[in-house]
Amino acid sequence: MAPPSAIDIEGVTDTEAIAIPDPLSINGIASQRLKAGRLIAGTAAGTSSSQFKSPTIGKPKAKRWDHYLTVESKSRHPSALKGAAVHLKKPGLISLGGGIPLAENFPIEEISVKVPTAPHFSEKEARETGTVLTAGKYDASEGSSVYDLSIALNYGQGTGSAQMLRFITEHTELVCNPAYADWGCTLTVGSTSSLDKSLRTFCERGDVVLAEEYTYSSAVETASSLGLDFIPIKMDSEGLLPEHMDEILNQWDEKARGARKPHVLYTVPTGQNPTGATQSASRRKAIYRVAQKHDIYIFEDEPYFFLQMQPYTGPSSPSVPAPQSNEAFLRSLAPTYLSMDVDGRVMRMDSFSKVIAPGTRVGWITASEQIIERVIRANESSVQNPSGISQIILFKLLDEHWGHAGYLQWLINLRMEYTSRRDVLLAACEKFLPRDLVTWDPPAAGMFLWLKVDHTKHPAVSTKPLLDIEEEIYLAAVEEGVLVAKGSWFIAQRGGFVSQELFFRATFAAESEEKMAFAIERFGVAVRKNFGLV
Amino acid sequence: MAPPSAIDIEGVTDTEAIAIPDPLSINGIASQRLKAGRLIAGTAAGTSSSQFKSPTIGKPKAKRWDHYLTVESKSRHPSALKGAAVHLKKPGLISLGGGIPLAENFPIEEISVKVPTAPHFSEKEARETGTVLTAGKYDASEGSSVYDLSIALNYGQGTGSAQMLRFITEHTELVCNPAYADWGCTLTVGSTSSLDKSLRTFCERGDVVLAEEYTYSSAVETASSLGLDFIPIKMDSEGLLPEHMDEILNQWDEKARGARKPHVLYTVPTGQNPTGATQSASRRKAIYRVAQKHDIYIFEDEPYFFLQMQPYTGPSSPSVPAPQSNEAFLRSLAPTYLSMDVDGRVMRMDSFSKVIAPGTRVGWITASEQIIERVIRANESSVQNPSGISQIILFKLLDEHWGHAGYLQWLINLRMEYTSRRDVLLAACEKFLPRDLVTWDPPAAGMFLWLKVDHTKHPAVSTKPLLDIEEEIYLAAVEEGVLVAKGSWFIAQRGGFVSQELFFRATFAAESEEKMAFAIERFGVAVRKNFGLV
Repeated sequence: MAPPSAIDIEGVTDTEAIAIPDPLSINGIASQRLKAGRLIAGTAAGTSSSQFKSPTIGKPKAKRWDHYLTVESKSRHPSALKGAAVHLKKPGLISLGGGIPLAENFPIEEISVKVPTAPHFSEKEARETGTVLTAGKYDASEGSSVYDLSIALNYGQGTGSAQMLRFITEHTELVCNPAYADWGCTLTVGSTSSLDKSLRTFCERGDVVLAEEYTYSSAVETASSLGLDFIPIKMDSEGLLPEHMDEILNQWDEKARGARKPHVLYTVPTGQNPTGATQSASRRKAIYRVAQKHDIYIFEDEPYFFLQMQPYTGPSSPSVPAPQSNEAFLRSLAPTYLSMDVDGRVMRMDSFSKVIAPGTRVGWITASEQIIERVIRANESSVQNPSGISQIILFKLLDEHWGHAGYLQWLINLRMEYTSRRDVLLAACEKFLPRDLVTWDPPAAGMFLWLKVDHTKHPAVSTKPLLDIEEEIYLAAVEEGVLVAKGSWFIAQRGGFVSQELFFRATFAAESEEKMAFAIERFGVAVRKNFGLV
Repeated sequence: MAPPSAIDIEGVTDTEAIAIPDPLSINGIASQRLKAGRLIAGTAAGTSSSQFKSPTIGKPKAKRWDHYLTVESKSRHPSALKGAAVHLKKPGLISLGGGIPLAENFPIEEISVKVPTAPHFSEKEARETGTVLTAGKYDASEGSSVYDLSIALNYGQGTGSAQMLRFITEHTELVCNPAYADWGCTLTVGSTSSLDKSLRTFCERGDVVLAEEYTYSSAVETASSLGLDFIPIKMDSEGLLPEHMDEILNQWDEKARGARKPHVLYTVPTGQNPTGATQSASRRKAIYRVAQKHDIYIFEDEPYFFLQMQPYTGPSSPSVPAPQSNEAFLRSLAPTYLSMDVDGRVMRMDSFSKVIAPGTRVGWITASEQIIERVIRANESSVQNPSGISQIILFKLLDEHWGHAGYLQWLINLRMEYTSRRDVLLAACEKFLPRDLVTWDPPAAGMFLWLKVDHTKHPAVSTKPLLDIEEEIYLAAVEEGVLVAKGSWFIAQRGGFVSQELFFRATFAAESEEKMAFAIERFGVAVRKNFGLV
């Protein structure tokens, strides 16, 4: 990874110049809902984010992306059968049209969930005295809720339910306040599926995609089976380097590279996997400017966005107190690409996996209406929509029980939890790892610590390939009783590329604090042994 | 649609000659489980159907399908990170490897569902006094269940959970008893996704797929965006005609057709959508033989398999009593392609959408291990697996509460329910439709009645295109207050093809019995008006 450097890229729109209306607040959401009246959305009701956004006066319209859409994406058409839904509005119409089963034949009458209570969200307390939320089959027609099992258990639309789409649209506006007018959201079955769909929307077999030089291995694998190579951009402690991105694009030689100039950037801006790097506000702006200059479309993959932690103060300094309000919390977060996206050139991917639970298999995409419509079409002929059971449980918890304010409280709570876990891991590293051999940057977000091992000091550095040394340390660590991930698993560019540095990734998400400390101690022993120091 | 005719195709293996072991019974499942001992499968545990099948002695091995796999499918590799799971078996190993969140941070302590009770499964009773099934977060480690929320809410494998894979593997063996040894299952996020994945596994852009001449419109749309055309096979009241399939394949001219010879058949054998046709046992065998002759791979899409109904006895004859036992019920079902598949050339797609609820978004695929492994890889880099919340609720209901026997009772109950609904629709048709203009075959399975309107008697038959007459009748029906689906929406071959007949599809799944009768009456009025008879 290269050192950070100043950014100076000419000839692109200054996003600062755009007048942006007052951002939406939690109170604003409440009055918006009051104004809109009770949400009426029955079985397989059509919906879109435009129902739930606040006015977007003064914001520019998104650019069109027809020139980048794939043959597959362009050949998707709305279903004829779904088109017939327009007639369903006719009063008294009886539909023998769609094969939508009757709710009376669903063998689930009620679903209840026991959940923790703000502001402490204690698991023990929740288990003993947690609040129980119940969804019945006919709550909507009986008037006790706007969502019920007769809707959630039936077929839905490619957008997901109106009830959950409302929540995530409001949440996205609250957090990101997109800089252009015609943005929207659609639910997905999680970010892995979002990425699969995004790549199929924008990239033809043989294309290349820009990405951090070390990146999420599953993204590389997904892209690779679609015939796409990742082009690595150098990184520093703030993630990818806009100058290098600009350089790659300026110097792109289709013939030499065997691929057309890249038109998509895949980036994990916050708590990047595997490096833990978080892009600063100025870094994001610089990258956005390079994207504008070269007409690059950005996939902003943000599973760890709400795992931004408190500043790291070291083992002996007092920790920084938690944000004192939801507003302070929101202000503390890194600005999103969506918030600076005057062109509509960003597709943001969010997920409940890291902040509620991966097993929900619910995520969402935010992008311009043109792109959202393409993704909805792709959902319709593949996953359809996320599990209705997941959706109604999330709705009961997030919308009806916690509300936006309570959800932010939960996220603050999670922030403090991850801060504490990271600090334990870092303290163990400081105590147990040989600092002359192993170095790291304290991560500001995410789940991962990226440990750099100084291979130049390895006794076999001139005789053994780096990958062999990596494998030896990896197996030595297993031998000592600890599993870490090899850095080479995350190399963006597969085939032909030889890593010049030696990294291991350790997570602070998965084990108890005691076990983490012990594991790092064992890893230190493994490294020392491998370097011939014990 | 052409009339049925005798089948005589030479030169293919006779599937009757294969010795098949005794099929698995419900008691057999119980003793198999007893023998296997308690199922131990924690967070993201690896699993496969081979853990749960009964011995397959004497059955042949599946053929390999390497010659049909797409570039996309062939380029999928197991994840390096998932490969590291092998080390997790080392006693005492602490994993800082995978970014698997801790269950203590999932804000759901318990999920309870209220469900109906065998044998009547009354909705009203269930609501008032239904059984409540509860899943806790740590039931598995506390010993009260083999599955819990700490597992279901976390990441899983591309197969789905071991707990649900066990149930569907046993169920599939019980119902289908596959004719070859190395079969397996994987969960999917529903049959629409199964089909998307299957097409991407077997068909390259520009390929063609054999299908019924009228077929599931969403399948046509999915195929179409992948650059695949459907080649229509003529049908009669028993579905597609093997002679026509054989003829198409014998006469295939790559140059004239602009595509290589088809190697995949997509068929809905039972209660076909939209025609309602169900293939007889002999029809299935004949089609399988044609598939063997031309080395065709079969996609057996069976969402309506368990909506096989009692024989139709007409409006004035007594109805046939329900099957008296689970065994009698299983014997009454049409034989599956899987049950006669000595080559492993069938991929069967099942779904809980029509028999439990569409909102679960849980289905499964059964095929040879080679193909299942490819689909699991595809799941890993897209949908991952179905919602863990859906999975644990299905597990509580199907496995722990009803068991296989209770689930079959539920399916018998559903069979009687659909029989009754179909009979109401048919009685209304007999009463209200002009029999000289509208004809139909009483469906033996599914959700749909396929109404043929005799366009030759239409006053404008020689001056108006058939599609215009169809549109007129469709809109006239809407005007009368009833929505039916146009036959032309289901034409398998898009573009260039002009329908020679006039059909409408009516479902008996979606409306109350009173409304169905009224709707058919109105449809009769619309037809008569359009034909100038009133």
